[in-house]
Amino acid sequence: MMKSDLIIHNAVVITVNPAFDIIDDGVVCIKDGVFHLVERRKNDISKYPSEEYIDADGGIVMPGLVNAHTHLAMSIFRGLADDLPLSVWLNDHIFPAEQKYLSPETVRAGTRLSCAEMLMSGTTTCCDGYFYEDSVAEAVIETGLRAVLAQGVIDFPAPGVPDPKRNVETAIEFVKKWKNRSPLLTPSIFCHSPYTCSAETLQNAKRAADDMGVRFQIHVAETKKEFDQIQAEHGVSVVKYLDSLGLLNENTIAVHAVWMDSDDIKLLSDNRVKVIHAPESNMKLASGVSPVPEMIEKGITIGLGTDGCASNNNLDLFAEMDSAAKLHKVFSKDPTVMDAKTVVQTATIQGAKAIGAGDVIGSLEPGKQADLIIIDIHKPHLTPMYHPASHVVYAAQGSDVRDVFVAGKALLRNHEPVCLDVKGIMKQAAAVGVAVKKMQTQG
Amino acid sequence: MMKSDLIIHNAVVITVNPAFDIIDDGVVCIKDGVFHLVERRKNDISKYPSEEYIDADGGIVMPGLVNAHTHLAMSIFRGLADDLPLSVWLNDHIFPAEQKYLSPETVRAGTRLSCAEMLMSGTTTCCDGYFYEDSVAEAVIETGLRAVLAQGVIDFPAPGVPDPKRNVETAIEFVKKWKNRSPLLTPSIFCHSPYTCSAETLQNAKRAADDMGVRFQIHVAETKKEFDQIQAEHGVSVVKYLDSLGLLNENTIAVHAVWMDSDDIKLLSDNRVKVIHAPESNMKLASGVSPVPEMIEKGITIGLGTDGCASNNNLDLFAEMDSAAKLHKVFSKDPTVMDAKTVVQTATIQGAKAIGAGDVIGSLEPGKQADLIIIDIHKPHLTPMYHPASHVVYAAQGSDVRDVFVAGKALLRNHEPVCLDVKGIMKQAAAVGVAVKKMQTQG
Repeated sequence: MMKSDLIIHNAVVITVNPAFDIIDDGVVCIKDGVFHLVERRKNDISKYPSEEYIDADGGIVMPGLVNAHTHLAMSIFRGLADDLPLSVWLNDHIFPAEQKYLSPETVRAGTRLSCAEMLMSGTTTCCDGYFYEDSVAEAVIETGLRAVLAQGVIDFPAPGVPDPKRNVETAIEFVKKWKNRSPLLTPSIFCHSPYTCSAETLQNAKRAADDMGVRFQIHVAETKKEFDQIQAEHGVSVVKYLDSLGLLNENTIAVHAVWMDSDDIKLLSDNRVKVIHAPESNMKLASGVSPVPEMIEKGITIGLGTDGCASNNNLDLFAEMDSAAKLHKVFSKDPTVMDAKTVVQTATIQGAKAIGAGDVIGSLEPGKQADLIIIDIHKPHLTPMYHPASHVVYAAQGSDVRDVFVAGKALLRNHEPVCLDVKGIMKQAAAVGVAVKKMQTQG
Repeated sequence: MMKSDLIIHNAVVITVNPAFDIIDDGVVCIKDGVFHLVERRKNDISKYPSEEYIDADGGIVMPGLVNAHTHLAMSIFRGLADDLPLSVWLNDHIFPAEQKYLSPETVRAGTRLSCAEMLMSGTTTCCDGYFYEDSVAEAVIETGLRAVLAQGVIDFPAPGVPDPKRNVETAIEFVKKWKNRSPLLTPSIFCHSPYTCSAETLQNAKRAADDMGVRFQIHVAETKKEFDQIQAEHGVSVVKYLDSLGLLNENTIAVHAVWMDSDDIKLLSDNRVKVIHAPESNMKLASGVSPVPEMIEKGITIGLGTDGCASNNNLDLFAEMDSAAKLHKVFSKDPTVMDAKTVVQTATIQGAKAIGAGDVIGSLEPGKQADLIIIDIHKPHLTPMYHPASHVVYAAQGSDVRDVFVAGKALLRNHEPVCLDVKGIMKQAAAVGVAVKKMQTQG
């Protein structure tokens, strides 16, 4: 038997393989950062040769979670403005705060903070779109997390892109700069929305993304206001408008996808568009409920995202899974929709597929990158355990994650980040918060 | 100045007093288990005389949370059956499991487990209704938590009450046995529902509760099925049916209160009935959305509850607050409803009032019992902090609770229960789970 670099054993393994096998007393073998064997233990563990062994202590081992939509740096605005309509929240609070406080330094501080939070709550991969994305990329690489990162495109003066005429060009430069720079980092292009980018901008950005072979991300049909605006200006739904511009193909990630009818869903499905569902953000901003069960039925690949910390207000995908399951049950009046298995898939393999990494991560299968987490189940709120996937969705929280590995490398051990100076990161982010608060108070 | 037994300082204090004052650099002074001073620090802390000082390290200090509806012992069935309609879940899984596995010993094991979970996630008071309630009372008293406890009444053979003719009598005996036994325990009577108890049972139980001066709890209008059944049998809504039986007064706690119209809400309001909202259970079972914003507008006192662990699947009131806020925003399409302040009130002072303890607990005010929690804010997901109440509702989780005090007595210090043998408690509950699982598998 091949000698492993690392073996994790005494584990309840949620493989998230196509059969969604759950293995009691599982053994997970890693070599060169890749899984080569995942099975029920057949022999004494000493018969599995390895450099290192980690005892999961009966805990749940599963793929690292994929946060398929976020704006990492926005953690510096966590809880700055709550309980407001999206347009007020965005136009009167978030956009002004971004104009005033964003710099390469504050973006770096917020990104590092978010990476610490993700790491400590079991997220190993994220898909981000924001401004000063070079700073985001540098900060993410430092942390050892896996990411798809995109420079944001918007048709007004933006932080770091004072001249909107240069927005697509700046995004293209970002992709060129970061392509093939790190095995963990994949660049992408992110257009803010159909109502903040012109048709020309959208088409130029989309063409560039397709030409360079990277994902094209865009907020789509998030609010009724957006839907009404596009309808008034173009006479069609948001999705149909994007289709008319040639924006919908298998390389496009439509984020939110709330205000849609069956025709729109069919368009997304026919064009193999990927959708990211961000239920907590949609709930908090009262944007609406995305027709996720219907989209899943139509075969659309759906990932799960937290959105930015200013509209959630955390990056905990365990809470997001719980909300995704419960929201759709009550909204559809059907408690059988979005069952635990389906929800776990959105936060792992489906999210991975959505962001273009379905062959690389998202399940514990031989040949895939060894991104995994260990959940400590020796907590009152995780006792007893009848169904591991149920625990993950309905009972666990981010702080139950004991260990985190990316490409076989330990990033969190016994709840402590291995390489990150969390205290320093928090201090830096808190200082940004103090400055923001001070200037807010001063008006 | 009076010498305190305990002073907590260096705290951001969410008082939950009528003005909802939030005090930076607050000092909380406790003598004989009661608050006697809560203020912004005016002098060096050494000028406040005390036997003991606890440094909150800049964390949030707030009233201990009130879980106003739960079935503690059901934690042994946590995650036993998910993603099912309420009637299937209840009739095919929960009722049979209760018949088969409930005993004074398993109820004690489940209750102890739930108390450990509540304590470690900041809940200091709960309101429970179940079977073998003597075992619940004994277990709760051991843990040092505050509770309103009720023996359950249902019109079919129940665990510990094989003869339904004795159900009300058994509940009355429970009240008599536990009244004035412990300053932390208040007995009550709990009728399961209008569809599982006859009119006679309901009226007898209600009369007994009123005569003995204890709260009368009942599940009300939880599901459409219940609503339709009552409508078919009695020709009126559930609330009107209960009103016709004389069940609605200021001493009644209506749990769930989902299927109601404006007339029903007016009836509850006019009769000063208390309502407990359990959003996560209602979502998970797809029961519906309780018209909470409308009820609050009508002046109804509304507490927050997790319901039992079989339908949630945890007892974390931080998650419940987050869900309560977000559910009503998206359902009413209004992001301004259920703001952070309102939601914090439901989980503290309003819940306290609902269960009849509004003069005793629920806020940090001189003269009230010293039930409080300290939240450690030195976590990435709680950095930076702009608005403490926003953090409590939208960003914090149960595991952020560092310390818990009930009546001035420390029950949790630095995340560790002071008196509970948590490992032993988990071992015992896990053993029950193994037995349940084994028998489920066998058929």
